[in-house]
Amino acid sequence: MKIDLLIHNAKQLITCASPNGAKRGQAMRDVGLISNGAVAVSDGEIVAVGPAADLRADYIARETVDAGGKVVCPGFVDPHTHAVYAGDRAAEFEMRIQGASYMEIMNAGGGIVSTMKAVRAASVEQLAAETRPRLDAMLALGTTTVEIKTGYGLDTASELKMLQAIAELDRTHPADIIPTFLGAHATPPEYKNNPDGYIDLVINKMLPAAAEWYRHSSFVACHSPFFCDVFCEANVFDRAQSKRALEAGLKLGLAPKIHADEFENLGGVSLAVELKAVSADHLDVTPPAEIEALAASNTVGVVLPAVNFNLGSAHFANARAMIDAGVALALATDINPGSAPCPSMPLVMALAARYQRLLPAEALNASTINAAHALGLGDRLGSLEVGKQADFLIVNAPDYRHLAYQFGVNLVDRVFKRGRGIL
Amino acid sequence: MKIDLLIHNAKQLITCASPNGAKRGQAMRDVGLISNGAVAVSDGEIVAVGPAADLRADYIARETVDAGGKVVCPGFVDPHTHAVYAGDRAAEFEMRIQGASYMEIMNAGGGIVSTMKAVRAASVEQLAAETRPRLDAMLALGTTTVEIKTGYGLDTASELKMLQAIAELDRTHPADIIPTFLGAHATPPEYKNNPDGYIDLVINKMLPAAAEWYRHSSFVACHSPFFCDVFCEANVFDRAQSKRALEAGLKLGLAPKIHADEFENLGGVSLAVELKAVSADHLDVTPPAEIEALAASNTVGVVLPAVNFNLGSAHFANARAMIDAGVALALATDINPGSAPCPSMPLVMALAARYQRLLPAEALNASTINAAHALGLGDRLGSLEVGKQADFLIVNAPDYRHLAYQFGVNLVDRVFKRGRGIL
Repeated sequence: MKIDLLIHNAKQLITCASPNGAKRGQAMRDVGLISNGAVAVSDGEIVAVGPAADLRADYIARETVDAGGKVVCPGFVDPHTHAVYAGDRAAEFEMRIQGASYMEIMNAGGGIVSTMKAVRAASVEQLAAETRPRLDAMLALGTTTVEIKTGYGLDTASELKMLQAIAELDRTHPADIIPTFLGAHATPPEYKNNPDGYIDLVINKMLPAAAEWYRHSSFVACHSPFFCDVFCEANVFDRAQSKRALEAGLKLGLAPKIHADEFENLGGVSLAVELKAVSADHLDVTPPAEIEALAASNTVGVVLPAVNFNLGSAHFANARAMIDAGVALALATDINPGSAPCPSMPLVMALAARYQRLLPAEALNASTINAAHALGLGDRLGSLEVGKQADFLIVNAPDYRHLAYQFGVNLVDRVFKRGRGIL
Repeated sequence: MKIDLLIHNAKQLITCASPNGAKRGQAMRDVGLISNGAVAVSDGEIVAVGPAADLRADYIARETVDAGGKVVCPGFVDPHTHAVYAGDRAAEFEMRIQGASYMEIMNAGGGIVSTMKAVRAASVEQLAAETRPRLDAMLALGTTTVEIKTGYGLDTASELKMLQAIAELDRTHPADIIPTFLGAHATPPEYKNNPDGYIDLVINKMLPAAAEWYRHSSFVACHSPFFCDVFCEANVFDRAQSKRALEAGLKLGLAPKIHADEFENLGGVSLAVELKAVSADHLDVTPPAEIEALAASNTVGVVLPAVNFNLGSAHFANARAMIDAGVALALATDINPGSAPCPSMPLVMALAARYQRLLPAEALNASTINAAHALGLGDRLGSLEVGKQADFLIVNAPDYRHLAYQFGVNLVDRVFKRGRGIL
């Protein structure tokens, strides 16, 4: 059979195959390793995966790529980011090291409001231009699909502007971008001390405008999902406010996601389970009963250890307990200018292995197949299986475990997106 | 005046200038920032540093490089590494995550003895070939000078083989390599329970052979120092054994360095001060009195936060207290296959900023000028000052603080070594 592309001589072909949904429990220890493997690709899709000897006999490829005895694995999926923003917060970072309090940083013009101001002042083109190098860095580090949230505009026009920047990036960047509306990221200064009033604005103005934008966007044509997220947290939005926003999103066709339990437990995970959210994210202080509820649901748990690292914290989400309880666990960078100026899924894997006791196999499954499920795209992305999009990496290592074992170095040698070698 | 090279349009030219020795105290907060700066280079040396307008008027350059409004800073100096080794320890890393004890890992063939066996079995050429990609990664991450220790051979022939690999790498790699003899890194199986007998071997056989090797090496011609190091630690070598080895080295012209206080305090810092060691390294459990003694000495304190990170530890050396006490502090990766599979000085800076409360300026001085002083090379390397070797970086950021603020990403855009653009 004639095909477009055959990748062969992968010392370890890591499929992360999981035909029956996200991986849980012992399955997270299995990366679907095929020794001396090969992948056959046509029309941007995987048509065969298996031992190189078999595939070389079965297929005639227009292009053959020798993986050089290295590791081949799925492209990483980063299912939780705030990658679109303007400016940076390096000065605030320095203030925090010097011991400045949250209020001192706010009074010095720092915090999320400083990013909100920069985003409100930027054009769509500026936002896309500032974000593109971040996506380039992410792609070079192996991330082939990136979820990006709004939530720095915090007014209708600026939130739409962020969505337009996200669409522009998806159109022009090799990575696939998945949009999430996060109008309820913070209460803007105009609604200070009136979060309910702001949630009303989100529900009555922003969400309908976002849903209307989506209907006319390029994302519809490629069957990309559109998510609605909310920051359910003490001093941000409580459980009732979060529920109102997510239910309004659901009515307009936006699938729910939630920021839950980053600092205080407000029952966000139980809300995610109740609303059948595709994911519940952060989970730093989720109590055992809610971990059990999450494990019993189809909601993916997404942990973000780069945030804890950025705080110089010794506390990390109890991802070990989550996996052991049966949660379908995913990892993400949460890249943003305040709490995680980090584009690297491999560093997140290295963190998870050391501070959350994930095995390298668990960290890799959490960054590929389970991360795809955290975006509702587990049937299309995140593993090397027949019929899936041909997004994969050649990793310069003798063993997939090096992705978590080595740190501070980029082992990604080549990146293939829809069967095309783009890096 | 005609020169070889002019780098101009550096939005921030970071000199790390320190004409009077290593930086201490408040001086560590000063990176010697020149806005819109330039550097003039001839014969691989810096001939002028200053505002771009001045230098463009004063010099006619054969080659002009536009730094593109980015940051220009000294190349990083990594003053503590075990970069020469064979094999890897990814399997042991996985065992540790699963909770294996030190003894279980040793019984499974892991630990330092596994690297010793791999090194003993390797040729000089193999050692150099396995190390070269690590040096390439370090260089791409901005490290232009690398100290490398022996200490995985643990017999005379194998320690000499490591020195030969170090010399071969220095000869063929763009980075400058500084050799350190660390025969007293561990007691090899042949001397089990007889560390004094092994120290006798180090003193009577290895050190004389190493000193003889050095006299005939290419390092002599370029006035490179040669250090003698020892692992002063509970269950490794006690203070008396460490002192014997370092004093024997001193008699042969090897300047002392020491691994001190990684796990237990044996008085290694006071020994370093007593012997006027160029540096005392690790310092994870150094008590306040010894911090004071270090501050009052010319010995540089070198901390290695990638090691603590690799253990998933919340405990890091109290580098904040050291700087506040007046210690001349430096950072290093400690890259090695067991406790720090990490080539990245920027990630070490990011760690130090978050877990040791170093300001970005302190972390940068600790990775440049003070790291050069930790190798006794502060008069030649580590800052952009007239007469120094022209080793510098163009960093893709609007502000030097991004080197510590962002993490998991390589911001180094170009690397210049002795005035030549090599990356």
